[in-house]
Amino acid sequence: MSSYRAGELLSQIQNPSDLRKLTEDQLPEVVKDLRQYIIDVVSEKGGHFGASLGVVELTVALHYIFNTPEDQLVWDVGHQAYGHKILTGRREDFHTNRKYKGLSGFPKRSESPYDTFGVGHSSTSIGAALGMSVANRLQNKKHIQHVAIIGDGAMTAGMAFEALNHAGVENTDLLVVLNDNCMSIDPNVGALKEYLTDITTSHTFNKVRDEVWNLLGKISKFGPNAQEIAKKIEIAVKSVLLKQSNLFESLHFRYFGPIDGHDVTHVAKVLRDLKNIPGPKILHCLTVKGKGYAPAENGSPTKWHAPGLFDKTTGQIIQTKKDKPTPPKFQDVFGKSIIELAKKNKKIVGITPAMPTGCSLKFMMEEMPDRAFDVGIAEQHAVTFSAGLATQGMIPFCNIYSSFMQRAYDQVIHDVALQKLHVVFCLDRGGIAGADGPTHHGAFDLSYFRCIPNMIVSAPMDEIELRNLMYTAQKENHGPFSIRYPRGEGSIVDWQKPFEEIEIGKGRIIKQGKDLAILTIGAIGIQAIEACEELQNSSIDAAHFDLRFVKPLDEALLHNVFQNFHKIITVEDGCLMGGMGSSVLEFASDHGYKAQVVRLGIPDRFIEHGSQDELYQECHYDKTAILTAAKELMKEQSTAASRPLSVTA
Amino acid sequence: MSSYRAGELLSQIQNPSDLRKLTEDQLPEVVKDLRQYIIDVVSEKGGHFGASLGVVELTVALHYIFNTPEDQLVWDVGHQAYGHKILTGRREDFHTNRKYKGLSGFPKRSESPYDTFGVGHSSTSIGAALGMSVANRLQNKKHIQHVAIIGDGAMTAGMAFEALNHAGVENTDLLVVLNDNCMSIDPNVGALKEYLTDITTSHTFNKVRDEVWNLLGKISKFGPNAQEIAKKIEIAVKSVLLKQSNLFESLHFRYFGPIDGHDVTHVAKVLRDLKNIPGPKILHCLTVKGKGYAPAENGSPTKWHAPGLFDKTTGQIIQTKKDKPTPPKFQDVFGKSIIELAKKNKKIVGITPAMPTGCSLKFMMEEMPDRAFDVGIAEQHAVTFSAGLATQGMIPFCNIYSSFMQRAYDQVIHDVALQKLHVVFCLDRGGIAGADGPTHHGAFDLSYFRCIPNMIVSAPMDEIELRNLMYTAQKENHGPFSIRYPRGEGSIVDWQKPFEEIEIGKGRIIKQGKDLAILTIGAIGIQAIEACEELQNSSIDAAHFDLRFVKPLDEALLHNVFQNFHKIITVEDGCLMGGMGSSVLEFASDHGYKAQVVRLGIPDRFIEHGSQDELYQECHYDKTAILTAAKELMKEQSTAASRPLSVTA
Repeated sequence: MSSYRAGELLSQIQNPSDLRKLTEDQLPEVVKDLRQYIIDVVSEKGGHFGASLGVVELTVALHYIFNTPEDQLVWDVGHQAYGHKILTGRREDFHTNRKYKGLSGFPKRSESPYDTFGVGHSSTSIGAALGMSVANRLQNKKHIQHVAIIGDGAMTAGMAFEALNHAGVENTDLLVVLNDNCMSIDPNVGALKEYLTDITTSHTFNKVRDEVWNLLGKISKFGPNAQEIAKKIEIAVKSVLLKQSNLFESLHFRYFGPIDGHDVTHVAKVLRDLKNIPGPKILHCLTVKGKGYAPAENGSPTKWHAPGLFDKTTGQIIQTKKDKPTPPKFQDVFGKSIIELAKKNKKIVGITPAMPTGCSLKFMMEEMPDRAFDVGIAEQHAVTFSAGLATQGMIPFCNIYSSFMQRAYDQVIHDVALQKLHVVFCLDRGGIAGADGPTHHGAFDLSYFRCIPNMIVSAPMDEIELRNLMYTAQKENHGPFSIRYPRGEGSIVDWQKPFEEIEIGKGRIIKQGKDLAILTIGAIGIQAIEACEELQNSSIDAAHFDLRFVKPLDEALLHNVFQNFHKIITVEDGCLMGGMGSSVLEFASDHGYKAQVVRLGIPDRFIEHGSQDELYQECHYDKTAILTAAKELMKEQSTAASRPLSVTA
Repeated sequence: MSSYRAGELLSQIQNPSDLRKLTEDQLPEVVKDLRQYIIDVVSEKGGHFGASLGVVELTVALHYIFNTPEDQLVWDVGHQAYGHKILTGRREDFHTNRKYKGLSGFPKRSESPYDTFGVGHSSTSIGAALGMSVANRLQNKKHIQHVAIIGDGAMTAGMAFEALNHAGVENTDLLVVLNDNCMSIDPNVGALKEYLTDITTSHTFNKVRDEVWNLLGKISKFGPNAQEIAKKIEIAVKSVLLKQSNLFESLHFRYFGPIDGHDVTHVAKVLRDLKNIPGPKILHCLTVKGKGYAPAENGSPTKWHAPGLFDKTTGQIIQTKKDKPTPPKFQDVFGKSIIELAKKNKKIVGITPAMPTGCSLKFMMEEMPDRAFDVGIAEQHAVTFSAGLATQGMIPFCNIYSSFMQRAYDQVIHDVALQKLHVVFCLDRGGIAGADGPTHHGAFDLSYFRCIPNMIVSAPMDEIELRNLMYTAQKENHGPFSIRYPRGEGSIVDWQKPFEEIEIGKGRIIKQGKDLAILTIGAIGIQAIEACEELQNSSIDAAHFDLRFVKPLDEALLHNVFQNFHKIITVEDGCLMGGMGSSVLEFASDHGYKAQVVRLGIPDRFIEHGSQDELYQECHYDKTAILTAAKELMKEQSTAASRPLSVTA
């Protein structure tokens, strides 16, 4: 049971049907209660903030006007769906949001019938809602309404455009609510954003009106009726312009707006009207991220996107007190090291698809604005744009979260790897990502990158290794070079060491040993270091090798390992299917080695949200799991020494 | 040396600098020669046809006006670049186009400095050209011009939109030539296509003009000057409309056109003018696929996209005479079987991203138009649209070529698999695809799908198996279910047998044996059947198992195999890294089996073009390679019998 107290009206709403019993003039009070409830809980429990505050009125109006859950709301990305969750039976559990075993931070089908489509990545809502509406047309359930709620940032992604292009000819009664706050997590970029600003401030119409009016002024000499006729002409021009000049109208959507997204009764009225208008339509709503909470409304929207805990009275963000210096975040090591490298190597440029803060490319954007590019939520374009840059001898560092890189998989294969172009892929959030959950875990990249020819696949164990891999990646043209590292802090306080080149495909020995070998890739290796120390207490002398590269594999190192050990543990913060451990098995098979290999990593299921440590434990590849695996393996009867056999491979 | 004779002017053009020595009035003659040369060669040697004929004038004009190769042309998709190849030093080799070891059917960087960017998949050109132009801006080579040539079909893909959105604010002197022929391979679809038609036929402008004119007519009574003023108003309205009402102008591109793309001197003149206009701009050219060859111009553009060999005089397509009935193409088995299934199961719908002919969904589109959807070149949307349909209880069969599925990888993971939705993915062109080469080989899907939780990964050995897998996939909801099959014909003439359900994750034994076991997945298994027969002649008694499923693996079958054989060969028409063979190694390792496993499949490099048989041979997994591997394996000293060990997994 939650200790958070909802306001009086909100406390009566167990689900949207309760909301729909209220009168329209009670809605502003519901809005107030709902906003306060979000502030109360998020300030103490953390989570996404600005986006949900910005759509409180929209959320209330949508559930008030539409007959949810039969009518279907599809929230894009889902950062903004906290109000939706609170109104749809999850108020009392809302304080568990994003906690292990608690509510998801995103809409999720298994959590509620009101969550019509699971989200996390952006720009899926229009296509999904279109699919729903076509399905219901085919099933003669035409009374069901379908609404996609999408931000202007998410609208820049190609798949949103693909869906608009299809919806424009499918002619279902789809409503797209464009929640225009000029932001994704960072300020939105691109021509579309400027266009939306333009239509909002009506430059287009004003320009026509001024020119026409100016000319019509000249005919006033023809008599008093001229002005009236001129007025009619203006109306004619305006009506055609509004219908035809609009980008969305070009794609056969009827365009309505822009309207003030914070006037709840007006939003409700417009939505009610739109229910009766057939065909695809778009409602352009202007909102403010962080609306109704002064520090967020007036401060940096990026900072207030997910501010962590804060004092709701003062707006002071609560900093965890640190007794001693702590290691930096991997993302900051990237963000600061790329500047160091770019100062020495004029060919280096940085590219991010809308995550300059999340990946810390913002430092370079500030210091070298002409050499760092935020291309919008557009992973596909980010990669092909990088490929184009590389054809001209530039060295793009293209930083994309591991799970978002799934969006650009074809471009990595077709535009970069096939042409062996010198693009450095920095995959942040590789491995378990934490509270954002299954949509954001970078579980698959080692597997899906490893099978691409020409690709170098590396992962640093710590900050110094990350720096050295970045240095190595730009030093010579080895073709595509990927470096993946996890969310969060590394392990080294004093990380800003001089760069050192690493030989491509060379692992390193962390600890000598004789009883068994532990092979790790990436930062999870730190858990193995700790495990090895504790194993000494059990008189198990484990060797530990940091592979550094999943591709190319360090064959000399592996020959050494397989010739000297017949018990091997592989550890990776990535899926077991086809991952690093699997590549070790391929090596062993191809060379006829027959050691016992125990592979630790993410099992073959989607992993829910929680802290990284909770999930490493759940997935059995944290320090304890390594310890356990080592001890069990040592209990096994030794088999014949592993040795190479000549095998046709 | 080619036996094809170029026309007189064409024969003097070794490269574009020769072309640029000609006078403008000689261009129509070059066009004529070039067109005839393409007809001469393609009619006898095969290849893509309609697209290249449609851009002959554009090709000549571009190389005439721009200083190639310093100025950079980026051809989208590349079907249409035959004229470009012939003008850029490859005329004499052009007859080797798409042949093993011959010229590639697409632009390819390693083939010519005039091929600035390798293509094959659509919609990459704007992003790549933008990258090039930004790189040259950074390198102070602002005199270099960059031109992306993209079709209206390719323009529907999201990544083209992402690139436009970015280019609109990057402000380089990028020129996009929109080659508008209302086609992709099949007729283009979607709202964008209708929009392009609309601006071409000027509905928008006409409507404003008519309304304004009508009103202005009423003021004629004010005097003779009124008409003139009205005319000025019309011009004002027109200029604003043309500048502001355009979708591309919305994205900050200056829009020019539409112009007739077959008037070479006019195209050249416009291109010359555009060279001096700064910033991003789009030139809308109207062309006709197959232009200048009457049978193609008047016939079906889809048929003439890549017609095979034909009699250039009569336009008769040459049919290979068949003495006896031959097996069908896998794609037709799909196309016909889905109709059979859909007639019985009302929930089934079909989805293709712009490949209705290529994947044979066209049959269903004809027979059940309301239940089969061509969503345009939009793989991402195709998958998320399917996910939306599935949430409402429909069963979408989403057919996407294996290599194009790379475009929708995130959507498969995030929108379908994570939500365990009942979507059936049919991956046509799985494995080596043949003459289209490395961009089109479906080399990676078994690896990149296998690591996705909840995903069923299957591949039929023959047509009957394909039918039965399709039947099984729709019978019950098992979550996402993928079925991959190769390009081309199967092996069974009498294939239209009654459907039979297949147990999920159950393989089958094709042949008993005692000396070694061959495990295959998919249609490449036919090669293993033939190999097994020949092995009998060498007194090798091989067992053959068709796994049918890479996921879930048939563990009972594999236990049986590993307990009875210590020599095992795996064969797959897919990459060895992380593929089926790798999954067998994982199984063996997890259960402590220590057999010798030889894995045959696509090696870790990009495979060039050629016939499928040529490439199976090159990659060493055809019948002969299986034979050789089996014989070599039998020569090896037998190791101790494989047996399970209890291992902590």
